[in-house]
Amino acid sequence: MKNYLTKIKTQNPLIHNITNVVAANFSANGLLAIGASPLMSAAIEEMDEVPRISQALVINIGTLMGKEVAAMVLAGKTANEVGIPVVLDPVGVGATTFRKQTVATLLKEVNFAAIRGNAGEIATIADVHWQAKGVDAGAGDADLAKIAQVVAQKYRCVAMISGATDYLSDGQRQAQIHNGTPLLPKITASGCLLSAICGAFLSVAQPEDYFHAMLEAATTYAIAGELAAQGLNPNQHGQFYIHLLDQLASITPQQILQYKRISL
Amino acid sequence: MKNYLTKIKTQNPLIHNITNVVAANFSANGLLAIGASPLMSAAIEEMDEVPRISQALVINIGTLMGKEVAAMVLAGKTANEVGIPVVLDPVGVGATTFRKQTVATLLKEVNFAAIRGNAGEIATIADVHWQAKGVDAGAGDADLAKIAQVVAQKYRCVAMISGATDYLSDGQRQAQIHNGTPLLPKITASGCLLSAICGAFLSVAQPEDYFHAMLEAATTYAIAGELAAQGLNPNQHGQFYIHLLDQLASITPQQILQYKRISL
Amino acid sequence: MKNYLTKIKTQNPLIHNITNVVAANFSANGLLAIGASPLMSAAIEEMDEVPRISQALVINIGTLMGKEVAAMVLAGKTANEVGIPVVLDPVGVGATTFRKQTVATLLKEVNFAAIRGNAGEIATIADVHWQAKGVDAGAGDADLAKIAQVVAQKYRCVAMISGATDYLSDGQRQAQIHNGTPLLPKITASGCLLSAICGAFLSVAQPEDYFHAMLEAATTYAIAGELAAQGLNPNQHGQFYIHLLDQLASITPQQILQYKRISL
Repeated sequence: MKNYLTKIKTQNPLIHNITNVVAANFSANGLLAIGASPLMSAAIEEMDEVPRISQALVINIGTLMGKEVAAMVLAGKTANEVGIPVVLDPVGVGATTFRKQTVATLLKEVNFAAIRGNAGEIATIADVHWQAKGVDAGAGDADLAKIAQVVAQKYRCVAMISGATDYLSDGQRQAQIHNGTPLLPKITASGCLLSAICGAFLSVAQPEDYFHAMLEAATTYAIAGELAAQGLNPNQHGQFYIHLLDQLASITPQQILQYKRISL
Repeated sequence: MKNYLTKIKTQNPLIHNITNVVAANFSANGLLAIGASPLMSAAIEEMDEVPRISQALVINIGTLMGKEVAAMVLAGKTANEVGIPVVLDPVGVGATTFRKQTVATLLKEVNFAAIRGNAGEIATIADVHWQAKGVDAGAGDADLAKIAQVVAQKYRCVAMISGATDYLSDGQRQAQIHNGTPLLPKITASGCLLSAICGAFLSVAQPEDYFHAMLEAATTYAIAGELAAQGLNPNQHGQFYIHLLDQLASITPQQILQYKRISL
Repeated sequence: MKNYLTKIKTQNPLIHNITNVVAANFSANGLLAIGASPLMSAAIEEMDEVPRISQALVINIGTLMGKEVAAMVLAGKTANEVGIPVVLDPVGVGATTFRKQTVATLLKEVNFAAIRGNAGEIATIADVHWQAKGVDAGAGDADLAKIAQVVAQKYRCVAMISGATDYLSDGQRQAQIHNGTPLLPKITASGCLLSAICGAFLSVAQPEDYFHAMLEAATTYAIAGELAAQGLNPNQHGQFYIHLLDQLASITPQQILQYKRISL
């Protein structure tokens, strides 16, 4: 752990999010909790400006409209130009032709520092058959570590597959994060918020450290989830939603070191 | 009760929602809590695909934009083609000409399995004069059971009027649900979430059982509200918001049987 | 205090909000909590109708899209025509050219009863140099009371700068509100909700009393925040979010009189 968490709290980076209407409020509150500043905007009129004042860009296709694709491309290109990291969250990419085409366009036009999704989404990007259901993860038995590596190599980025175990690869290195709680997938946009938080961690790291930044982001988030679930029963979705924000604000580097369960 | 709740938890149906920006997050969390999978999308580019992978479609006009009407029509026609149930939530239909025209278009182009709204909204659809105020229910003394029946017969669907008492009709049968809590209308989108949950219950029922599915949906939701309000004072809007999600996740068929107050 | 709070709870005014996707749910719940009725709509097709059934209009540019500017102008002009108060929340106005142009257009086309923002936003409108960061307040040492006065005089409105101390001016009179809690800026859209609540207070006041209505709105909100923060530690963002809604619903005129810390 390189303690990017403390850097976020010190530097308070501005994270530009083009996200979906389901995740917008939760992602903004989660970014504030972790110590970053959220800026939500998908207006094409300002997509060549907002990335210039931001320290990272997070593109999430969860509830995109046709016109937003152009805004995403413009923001991504601007972010590439100024050199800030860009995260892609390909929500439900396997579900429709439109989403597949959108992600193909984004991957062609924009260089992503990281791509984060569930198994079905990342497998779709890797062109591996995976039984997905809508925007949910689906189930299957492919080699998730391998899929993450394929995507990382293909798009020269850090790829992360989120699930009960998180799989991380930068094409060479691999990591698995075993922290987490079954309550995380029970609240909507918990994956979207993780993508936003990945943006915050990348924003305070050097490009050669993006793998470690993503590793710390996922570990921090999963442990915050574990701490938030303490004392709750599996049906307390609402309470978990609130506790997760509390824990993202209070989690310390010491807790991360103490609770992390990572295999490399 | 035909125990559709258990079927939802077992089958985990995918519910396609075209909904408003106020309700999007809450509806998604509520659907997850009840055991369904939410998919929020209003992108016209994928409206002939998303219903094909979904088990129900819920159309809510709460904060629609002009271009979304075409998306709603396309999604509705696709849903009709593949035979999944479609729910209409005509939010604030009496408030503006645009909403009236939108609902008229939807009712002409799409066959709805169910229409759910408050008294003012359903009365507008029934062409009964009703003193509405914006998107709220307003007040009056018309015969609500009769209004539900008129709408059910006119549009060959199950009509539900939500309020302190819920009125349900499929044109022949009538039911009134006396469960609920004054805290439900105190949180925004509580009606929108009920419409989404109606979609979940319909998705696991046969068309000839839609009346019972709607009856169980409304009863389940109202009892979850009662349980969520236990121990709260009438001003604890925030706590109720969270408790309602918890109760939707934990409510059991036994609780529904124990607490239901229905007159047929 | 002229006890506008009680008037809101008695008259239950309908507040038309054109707001951003981050704030939509929270603002609606906050308006319900204070006793008003929210109506969220940015559909240009109904912008010449919704203000006619509303008692105030709140325009917030937080996540605007290009087409929404025309909707904002039309709604604003309609509101001016029927004489209801209009509030402007110029979110992040200093961040991009598009936002500056949008606010310039709005200020030219619409008469606002009140303009509320953070120091960076109001300073941008006053044409005072201010170091802003995205949609956040930034920091500086300009004379905030003077900036509020300049904006109030220039646009013949009540101007409010929100922060640890709130600065209020109608061009002649000045007030500072010292209530509040560091937790308020830790949750997203807390400023947006205050703007919506300003709309509710203005809606039950006469134009000559708008200064007092804004003073009471800001004081009520800040004290509700103080009460919501009681017993919480500075990291309990999630709990504060929920407690704030509870306190907005339960706060009494007696509490406002007891806790207010205002300098005139």
